[in-house]
Amino acid sequence: MNNLVVQKFGGTSVADVDKIKNVADAVIREKRNGNNVIVVVSAMGHTTDYLVKMAKDITDTPSPREMDMLLSTGEGISIALLAIALQSRGYDAVSLNAMQIGIHTEDKHMKARITDIEKARIEKELNAGKIVVVAGFQGVTQDGEITTLGRGGSDITAVALAAILNADRCDIYTDVDGVYTADPRIVPTAAKLDEISYEEMLELAQAGANVLHPRSVEAAKAHNVVLRVRSSFKLNDKGTLILGVDKMEINKAVTGIAVDLSQARIVVCSVPDRPGTAAKVFSALAKENISVDMIIQSYANKEHNTNDIAFTMNSDDAGVAIEILRSLKDELEFSEVEANFDIAKVSVVGAGMIGRPGIASKMFKALAEADINIKMIATSEIKISCLVDKSDTQKAIRILHDTFELSDGSIFEVTGGLPIS
Amino acid sequence: MNNLVVQKFGGTSVADVDKIKNVADAVIREKRNGNNVIVVVSAMGHTTDYLVKMAKDITDTPSPREMDMLLSTGEGISIALLAIALQSRGYDAVSLNAMQIGIHTEDKHMKARITDIEKARIEKELNAGKIVVVAGFQGVTQDGEITTLGRGGSDITAVALAAILNADRCDIYTDVDGVYTADPRIVPTAAKLDEISYEEMLELAQAGANVLHPRSVEAAKAHNVVLRVRSSFKLNDKGTLILGVDKMEINKAVTGIAVDLSQARIVVCSVPDRPGTAAKVFSALAKENISVDMIIQSYANKEHNTNDIAFTMNSDDAGVAIEILRSLKDELEFSEVEANFDIAKVSVVGAGMIGRPGIASKMFKALAEADINIKMIATSEIKISCLVDKSDTQKAIRILHDTFELSDGSIFEVTGGLPIS
Repeated sequence: MNNLVVQKFGGTSVADVDKIKNVADAVIREKRNGNNVIVVVSAMGHTTDYLVKMAKDITDTPSPREMDMLLSTGEGISIALLAIALQSRGYDAVSLNAMQIGIHTEDKHMKARITDIEKARIEKELNAGKIVVVAGFQGVTQDGEITTLGRGGSDITAVALAAILNADRCDIYTDVDGVYTADPRIVPTAAKLDEISYEEMLELAQAGANVLHPRSVEAAKAHNVVLRVRSSFKLNDKGTLILGVDKMEINKAVTGIAVDLSQARIVVCSVPDRPGTAAKVFSALAKENISVDMIIQSYANKEHNTNDIAFTMNSDDAGVAIEILRSLKDELEFSEVEANFDIAKVSVVGAGMIGRPGIASKMFKALAEADINIKMIATSEIKISCLVDKSDTQKAIRILHDTFELSDGSIFEVTGGLPIS
Repeated sequence: MNNLVVQKFGGTSVADVDKIKNVADAVIREKRNGNNVIVVVSAMGHTTDYLVKMAKDITDTPSPREMDMLLSTGEGISIALLAIALQSRGYDAVSLNAMQIGIHTEDKHMKARITDIEKARIEKELNAGKIVVVAGFQGVTQDGEITTLGRGGSDITAVALAAILNADRCDIYTDVDGVYTADPRIVPTAAKLDEISYEEMLELAQAGANVLHPRSVEAAKAHNVVLRVRSSFKLNDKGTLILGVDKMEINKAVTGIAVDLSQARIVVCSVPDRPGTAAKVFSALAKENISVDMIIQSYANKEHNTNDIAFTMNSDDAGVAIEILRSLKDELEFSEVEANFDIAKVSVVGAGMIGRPGIASKMFKALAEADINIKMIATSEIKISCLVDKSDTQKAIRILHDTFELSDGSIFEVTGGLPIS
């Protein structure tokens, strides 16, 4: 479809009736620009919390199937109210839930993946000149069961619609006005990026920049959907474009700095060096669905031929992980399990570092000169991460921001804020 | 299906999480009695009001299509929570909305009628031993549009399910414990009826006994579904059975007394007696969807050959009706339109009055002896209604209750309360 724009508004953007009216303004603006408009909305602000609380007041372990039935009502409310707001302004609009559209997902509750979206109903409404208001976050299985897409689900819905309907743009409206080189609350000179590649955004997102869930960036990358992250409150601000690295002009090695304060480090100490030991450790964790991030295996003691195996994970999972590991103690014959929650993962990210050696050493040197101890290092093609003491976080970010000259005012605008998980 | 019971719980019965747990008790009780159980629930207490308020905060005239999208989320919440409550007690349960079941309705928003219900999904779940929790009040059109059934909609859903699945019983749980001979707040000796015929219940319902909406009684009558009105708070109380007159033992001419305080009387005064005048008046009202109840046309003045046309209607409609009538003044050449809101319609109802003459005269005589002026009279086969001054309401009910000996303790139990509209 020509001139098709998909807009997505999150829960804070539709938190109350007044905010829904503001969203209607942003939608009407695109419509008046001559575009066909699909709007994807999440549940209103605290609706989801309210619904979860009621379920938890009944039992601590509600079934995922019924939780999906329950939570999907949240977007049912917000889409109807937005359609009413658009109609009250004289625009033809229609709200549609996942069953009505046919947003098909796999048969898995609370974090289903979209398998297919039927185009017929949406195209019919768009062809009739209507603004189509779509319930984000929800889907339906082949058997007519309601599913939800998990964290970042509404973004996924928006990207999937943009991909399948070949939209010109997918605008993700949030309470921040774009993607920044670092958290402006920590680095006052942090600069908003005009554009960033999918790959860089993925590294930033996984390292804790909560603007977009990695799944939606991955989906956008896979289907070549151009995303724009922009503010629901500053409609004239262009935000940050997220697009293929081939479409970008890269003039810096490092695009931004990300911090993840949600990790814990676990060290399995003095494990006898036998084949298959690491596999046993990590498959035991995988069986409990625990994702491990940075991993380092080091020869701690050559004399006794033992290793230390150190890795990081979300600190929420650390308790279970420690239990699992302790249950393996007799089998693996390690000495003990250590856990450290006072750590931060600081990463520099940039598609421009490919083919430019020296970025890592520059980072390590800068941190060393500031007396910051690096506990672990991990690298990918476009990211270098260092694990440091949590108390060093702010200093590390500021120093790296200066070191890689991320505040260059000639390129970047400095405003707003970016949350850290 | 054998041993199938349909239970229906209204908004006050599921008003909060604790009440939902109580409902789970009542459901489990039927299940443990060896029955297959379908539970129909309405939206939680004030959910509907809350949703309507948000829509009205946007516009006074939200579209019916979007209101149906909005309101249908209400039952989505209550069915999921009830299913969670049942599961937490160890019972297998599944919640289903109208789209999932296929509760098909005509293509009309906010007061659609059910045209058909698909049995497959419900039967599959019942056969798997599950308690099926169904969203009342909502339906879906052939085009996948969500509709709602209007007032009394959840009762209709329950009756329709009982009819189509051939249930043994359809229990309507309410905040009253049955149908009474009169409003116990007015007549302390009012007696709860053990059983009542569809026809009597219809007359009582239309005259203002708000226990059941007439539509659901009509549906039950049409499909011969035995209804039981009972209290959600007194599970040992058998309530009142509503069934075919052929299955009843009739031993009284009058079953009960009903009052309707929601009516207004309008009189179109001194209308020249010409053919077609009444038709013009009532078709003008019908065009605006205003239902008229009692109608009397009287020769007020034989000399000038004019009539007074008097009728009653819901007082909510009276304002519009008066406007419509005034716009016809020049055409119909009447003198004026009078409206009176201080009236009450008091009715005696009983299938037993068929073939027993003298009930009407006994009623009029009793009212006359009490100095109560009768302003209008209307009769059907099993009901006699008198319009009186609102201030005479309580006196009229008490006298009629005595006159027709409705407090016979040998037949009826006296407890509880019946609301008046």
